[in-house]
Amino acid sequence: MARKQRERVGPGGAGVGYQGEPGAFSEEAVLLVFPGARAEPTRTFREIFEAVEAGRLDFGVVPLENSQGGSIADTYDLLANGAVTIVGEVVVRVDHALLGVPGARVQDVRRVLSHPQALTQCDEFLAGLGVEVIPMYDTAGAAKHVAEDGRPDQAAVAAERAAGVYGLEVLARRIQTHPDNRTRFAVIARAGDAETASGAPAVPARPLGKPDKTTIVFGTPHVPGALVRCLSIFAFRGLNLAKIESRPLGDRPWEYRFYLDVEAGADDEPLREALGELARVATDLRVLGSYPRWRGVP
Amino acid sequence: MARKQRERVGPGGAGVGYQGEPGAFSEEAVLLVFPGARAEPTRTFREIFEAVEAGRLDFGVVPLENSQGGSIADTYDLLANGAVTIVGEVVVRVDHALLGVPGARVQDVRRVLSHPQALTQCDEFLAGLGVEVIPMYDTAGAAKHVAEDGRPDQAAVAAERAAGVYGLEVLARRIQTHPDNRTRFAVIARAGDAETASGAPAVPARPLGKPDKTTIVFGTPHVPGALVRCLSIFAFRGLNLAKIESRPLGDRPWEYRFYLDVEAGADDEPLREALGELARVATDLRVLGSYPRWRGVP
Repeated sequence: MARKQRERVGPGGAGVGYQGEPGAFSEEAVLLVFPGARAEPTRTFREIFEAVEAGRLDFGVVPLENSQGGSIADTYDLLANGAVTIVGEVVVRVDHALLGVPGARVQDVRRVLSHPQALTQCDEFLAGLGVEVIPMYDTAGAAKHVAEDGRPDQAAVAAERAAGVYGLEVLARRIQTHPDNRTRFAVIARAGDAETASGAPAVPARPLGKPDKTTIVFGTPHVPGALVRCLSIFAFRGLNLAKIESRPLGDRPWEYRFYLDVEAGADDEPLREALGELARVATDLRVLGSYPRWRGVP
Repeated sequence: MARKQRERVGPGGAGVGYQGEPGAFSEEAVLLVFPGARAEPTRTFREIFEAVEAGRLDFGVVPLENSQGGSIADTYDLLANGAVTIVGEVVVRVDHALLGVPGARVQDVRRVLSHPQALTQCDEFLAGLGVEVIPMYDTAGAAKHVAEDGRPDQAAVAAERAAGVYGLEVLARRIQTHPDNRTRFAVIARAGDAETASGAPAVPARPLGKPDKTTIVFGTPHVPGALVRCLSIFAFRGLNLAKIESRPLGDRPWEYRFYLDVEAGADDEPLREALGELARVATDLRVLGSYPRWRGVP
């Protein structure tokens, strides 16, 4: 029993969910933050949130934005609706490779499978090949499919490490249009100090570091200049905004909620003050997490 | 020759591009703005922009945002990079239906095909059916595929009107989670007063109305509060912002460009002043178009 608990908690043996198949960039993100973790693949982002909320997983690692493709809308919606908190972030370099079956040649490839965003990121290379592109759920899943089919005229766009996982060969590397392509992920845990189903605390055994970045979400009242008023609260205190993102409310067309990444910890005095003031102006203000900025790949 | 020209220009016989297959919501958007238009389907958004820029099409109708799914990132990127101008907007109600082959029964459906966003918008209904969902390029394309396959255990999520186009039956109507689901489209034309390949002017023969909405794009310098400073220029003049959207610059990770919809015409004095001031603070300011607000479906 003690052993079972140890397997589920802490950076060593934590159960950490990611969306996709083994070999996905998300799995790499998990292993960067939790080198010894039990990385658990899921089919959808929602499954990660549900498993973390229910305590079946200690953490989840979910993509927030890609430096080319922009924000991942589903993640932002799940963060606003969920009972999880952001406890960390991690940035992964996204170098796409063209993977084919052993012996395949790049000039014989006719069909290329991958996630739509990966296909877009490699559009110049793929246009040069003159191939048909087939959208799939994720990059590693595309690699798996190409390996299972075994056809030399099919290839996948995926991480180079997916070649090792599925027994494929790298036909071309770093085929993305912008060489400096990165994805930023959030590390999520159950909100509050609740315990996981295994009886282990839902916060990392070894904290990920002192929080110096905070993500919040709020709505604005229906008056001209409302958003400016909300943002000025931060500008007035010299608090830098790393990111602003808007998402529709869904049930009210053309109304939005706003997500801000503020470069300060939620307990730092200027941000504590700012949040107090914002609560009087904004609607539905929530702190989604306060966590240490990622200090690996910038 | 005179006849050929008449076929290509004006709200009557204009060539208007949309992405998707006949029966798509985008085709409906085209016909709402240009009732007698020659609606031209394309496979990608990029093809519409290229055809409009080259003068092969008089107009394009491209989706900007959905009230549930949010902004369509590809369109925003193409608007920033393109040589087109927004001359109008149009809002379409998006009521999704489940379409099957004649005689199919909803309880026998095992696989449902559609665009990923349509599948997400109907997630509660589809979860209740317990079916496998298959992502495809677009809703009408999914309907076409179901019709061609002819299998009674396959269905598509698409507009009800796609049933008529492909000889399918409506198995269930208005299956989206949020009943009030809408998509807003931009009407684009070639920028400036250039002429189309057919010799016809690139602006509508009958103007779409007096501009009272303007879309701009700009970057911000790297100083705290830069975005607030840009937005205050509008707030100070009582100019309402209908929407703010951020998109990554791509070649510079974690830097963004911002898109604003301002509720005023670009020639209205307060906005002319605001744009003059913004040009001194922002980087790469461009007016993407000034056009009449859509007064059909709100």
